[in-house]
Amino acid sequence: MSEKTVIVLGADGYLGWPTSLHLSRSGYRVVAVDNLVRRRWDAECGTSSLVPIRSMPARVRAWQDTGGAEIEWRRLDVCNAPALSELIRETRPAAVVHFGEQRSAPFSMIDREHAAMTQMNNVAGTINLLFALRDHAPDCHLVKLGTMGEYGTPNIDIEEGFINIEHNGRRDTLPFPKQPSSFYHLSKVHDSHNIHFACRVWGLRATDLNQGVVYGSETEETAQNRRLATRFDYDTIWGTVLNRFCVQAALGQPLTVYGQGGQTRGFLDIRDTIACVRLSVENPPKPGEYRVFNQFTEQFSVRQLAELVSEARAEHHLDTTIEHIPNPRVESEEHYYNAKHQRLLDLGLRPHFLRSTLISSVIETVERHRNRVDVSVLEQPNVDWKLGGTVLWRQRRRRASGNGHRTRPLSPRASGSHG
Amino acid sequence: MSEKTVIVLGADGYLGWPTSLHLSRSGYRVVAVDNLVRRRWDAECGTSSLVPIRSMPARVRAWQDTGGAEIEWRRLDVCNAPALSELIRETRPAAVVHFGEQRSAPFSMIDREHAAMTQMNNVAGTINLLFALRDHAPDCHLVKLGTMGEYGTPNIDIEEGFINIEHNGRRDTLPFPKQPSSFYHLSKVHDSHNIHFACRVWGLRATDLNQGVVYGSETEETAQNRRLATRFDYDTIWGTVLNRFCVQAALGQPLTVYGQGGQTRGFLDIRDTIACVRLSVENPPKPGEYRVFNQFTEQFSVRQLAELVSEARAEHHLDTTIEHIPNPRVESEEHYYNAKHQRLLDLGLRPHFLRSTLISSVIETVERHRNRVDVSVLEQPNVDWKLGGTVLWRQRRRRASGNGHRTRPLSPRASGSHG
Repeated sequence: MSEKTVIVLGADGYLGWPTSLHLSRSGYRVVAVDNLVRRRWDAECGTSSLVPIRSMPARVRAWQDTGGAEIEWRRLDVCNAPALSELIRETRPAAVVHFGEQRSAPFSMIDREHAAMTQMNNVAGTINLLFALRDHAPDCHLVKLGTMGEYGTPNIDIEEGFINIEHNGRRDTLPFPKQPSSFYHLSKVHDSHNIHFACRVWGLRATDLNQGVVYGSETEETAQNRRLATRFDYDTIWGTVLNRFCVQAALGQPLTVYGQGGQTRGFLDIRDTIACVRLSVENPPKPGEYRVFNQFTEQFSVRQLAELVSEARAEHHLDTTIEHIPNPRVESEEHYYNAKHQRLLDLGLRPHFLRSTLISSVIETVERHRNRVDVSVLEQPNVDWKLGGTVLWRQRRRRASGNGHRTRPLSPRASGSHG
Repeated sequence: MSEKTVIVLGADGYLGWPTSLHLSRSGYRVVAVDNLVRRRWDAECGTSSLVPIRSMPARVRAWQDTGGAEIEWRRLDVCNAPALSELIRETRPAAVVHFGEQRSAPFSMIDREHAAMTQMNNVAGTINLLFALRDHAPDCHLVKLGTMGEYGTPNIDIEEGFINIEHNGRRDTLPFPKQPSSFYHLSKVHDSHNIHFACRVWGLRATDLNQGVVYGSETEETAQNRRLATRFDYDTIWGTVLNRFCVQAALGQPLTVYGQGGQTRGFLDIRDTIACVRLSVENPPKPGEYRVFNQFTEQFSVRQLAELVSEARAEHHLDTTIEHIPNPRVESEEHYYNAKHQRLLDLGLRPHFLRSTLISSVIETVERHRNRVDVSVLEQPNVDWKLGGTVLWRQRRRRASGNGHRTRPLSPRASGSHG
C-alpha cells in the first residue's frame, strides 16, 4: 500500500465522493476538498439528490466507522488562489484529481451570468491550480476531468486528444480539433488548452480524462453503508440521461427522448469512472507530458438507451413507452460517431458494460426513494440552447429565492437530505 | 457613403484608435469605446508611448477640427455586462470591431494574477458581447481581433481557421488545431471557440481576424495632425519586435534578438491592419457564419527583421550590430512556418510590404521623440516564461506603486503624454 497523498478537488460531487472513497481504500492518503457550492446550486434550481446524502464531515466519519482510513476534509474554493496554493504547499500531493468545476451544460446555458460564471469559475480554478503546482509541487500529477463533449461530433473518428495530420505533403501530431456544444463544454476545452500549455512551458505532468456520460448510483465503497451514498440527480439540469430514464421507468412514466434521439455519445458505469481515475493516478505520465484518455466504455445513441431501459423493464413484464419531445439543445440528432477509447483499457481497465441487471438495480434504487421523487423536475426546470432558462426556470428560481435559496432547497422532500 | 454604425471596442489602443479614424473617414458612424485601462497598465509597468498621445476627448475633438466626422466617445468596460448590453441595444450597430482585450503576451506571463486577469478579462468581455448581440443586435457583424499566435508553430501549413482532414477513410472540415504560446494567446483561443459556438447555436455572424505582428507608427489619418497620433510602444512588455528594433537602431544600440532568432511569424504594416478591418466590415459573412482570416502580409524570422533594419541603416551609412540574448520565452527558435493569408487579398487588400523606406520613416519618428526614450525599458521590465516577472520587474513595480502607480507613469519623460 502506498502512502502517497492525493487531493480530490470537488470531493462532495456525484463522482468526487466515490473517487475519494476508492482512492482511500486503495491506500492513498486522501485530502477531500470542496466548496459545497453544488448543494447551493441545487437550492437555486429547485433540484435535489434522489438518494439522501450526508454532509462531508458525516460522510468522512461514516467511512472511518466502516473501517476506512481517515479522509482529511477541507472546505476550500479552488477560486481562492492563496488558499489553494497553501494547500498544495502544505500537503505536497503526488497527485491532484480535479473534479472541482461547474459540470452542467444546461446550467451554463441559462443566461449570461451562468455562462460567464461557469467559464470564470472553471478556468480560473484550473489556472490557480496550475500555478500552485508550478510553485509548490512541480512533480505532482494533475488528473483533470474533461469531457468527451469537447470533441463535438466530427465526421471522422475521434482520437484520444491528438491526431496525426498529413497536409500538403507534411505531417504533424496536433491537438484534436474541438467543437464543444455548450458554455460548460467550452470551459473544459479552455482548461485543456491551458493545461497543455503549462505542461509544455513549465514541465508539469497531466492526464486529461475526457469522460463520457456516467450512469449508475453505487460503487463497492458507497454501497457499504447508506451514510456513504453519493448523490443521484435525475432532473433536467444535473441528471444524466440514463439515470433520468431509470427514474421515469420506475414511476411508470414515458421515457422522454430529445428529438430524434440519434445523438450518440460515450457512456460508462460510475464504477469504471473511479477505476479510471485510480489507474491514471497509478500510472503517471512523464514530466512535461500532457496526455488525454477518452474515458468511456461503450457508445450508445439516446434512442438506444431508451430501448435498453424499455427491454430491462419488459424482463420484469412491465411496459414502458418512449416519447420524443422537442430538443431544447442545438445539436445533430443523426451523425457519425466513432470515438477511440483504448488507452485506459491498456492500463488495465475492466469495464462494467451496460446490462439490464444494472438498469434494474438503478431502478430498484429509485424505487427505494420513490417518495423523494419530485416529478416536476423530470421536465422542468428546462433550459433552451437558444433562449436560455425558460419561463418555468425563472418561476422556480423566484420561488427558490423567496424561500431563502442559499440555505434551503425548494423541494420539501429534500429537506434534511444534506444533513 | 454608408450611414452604418460601427462600434470600436478598445478605441484608445495602438490599433483601435487608427481604426476608428479610418472607419470614420470611410463614412461610418463610429462609436469609440474604451475603459482606458491600457494607460493604467503603462503606469503599472513603468512604460509609456514614445509618441505623445492625447486623451480620448482631445483626440476626438482634433479629428473634427481636421474636418473629420463626429466620433462618439464612450468610456465603458466590456466586462460591465449591463452597460455593454445597453450600448448595443441603444446603438444597434451594423458591426462591432472588438480590440478591447489585454493584448500583451509578456504581461500575461508575469504571475498568476496577470494570467488569470488576462483570461477573465478577455473571455468575460467577449461572452458579454456575444450575449448582448444575441439579445439586441443578432444581425450585427462581430469583427474580432484574434492572433496568428493561436496556431503556434505546427509542422504543417497553417490554414485560415479551418482545415480539411482525411482520417481513416473519412473527411471533415474542422477548426485548425491550436497550440498557443502564452496565457494571452490562450485567451484568444478561448474567445475563438466561444464565438464559433455562438455562431453555430445562435446564428450570429463573426469574422475572427488572426492578426500577425503589427509594425509602423502612422496611418494616413493619424498623420494629418500630431494630436491624432496613436501610441508607439518599444518596451519589452507592449512593444512589437520591429518597432523595438527601430528604437534601438535610432539610439545606435545593438538590436537584441531573443535566442537564435529563427522564430518566424506573420507581420503587417499598421496601415494594412486598418484596411483589413474595413474590408471585413464591408464584406460581412452570412448569418450563422464564423469565418477566420489570417491577417498578415509577409513572413519573417526575427533574425531577418534585425537584418532588414541593419540594411536600412546601412543605406544611410550607419552601422548597426545585432546581439543575441537569452530567450525569456519558451518557443521553438528554428521551425517550419508557412501560414496562408489569401482571404483578405481576395477581398481587395493591397499590402504595404516592408521596405527600407518604412523602416527609415519609423526610425525618423523615433528620432523626433528621442528625448522621450527611456533606455531602461528596452531590456526591462522583462518577463521570463518559466519564472514570470523578474526581479527587476518587481522592483520597477514597487517604485511605480510608491509613486502612486494608478495615476502617474514612472518615467518622468512620459508625464503629460496622456493629456
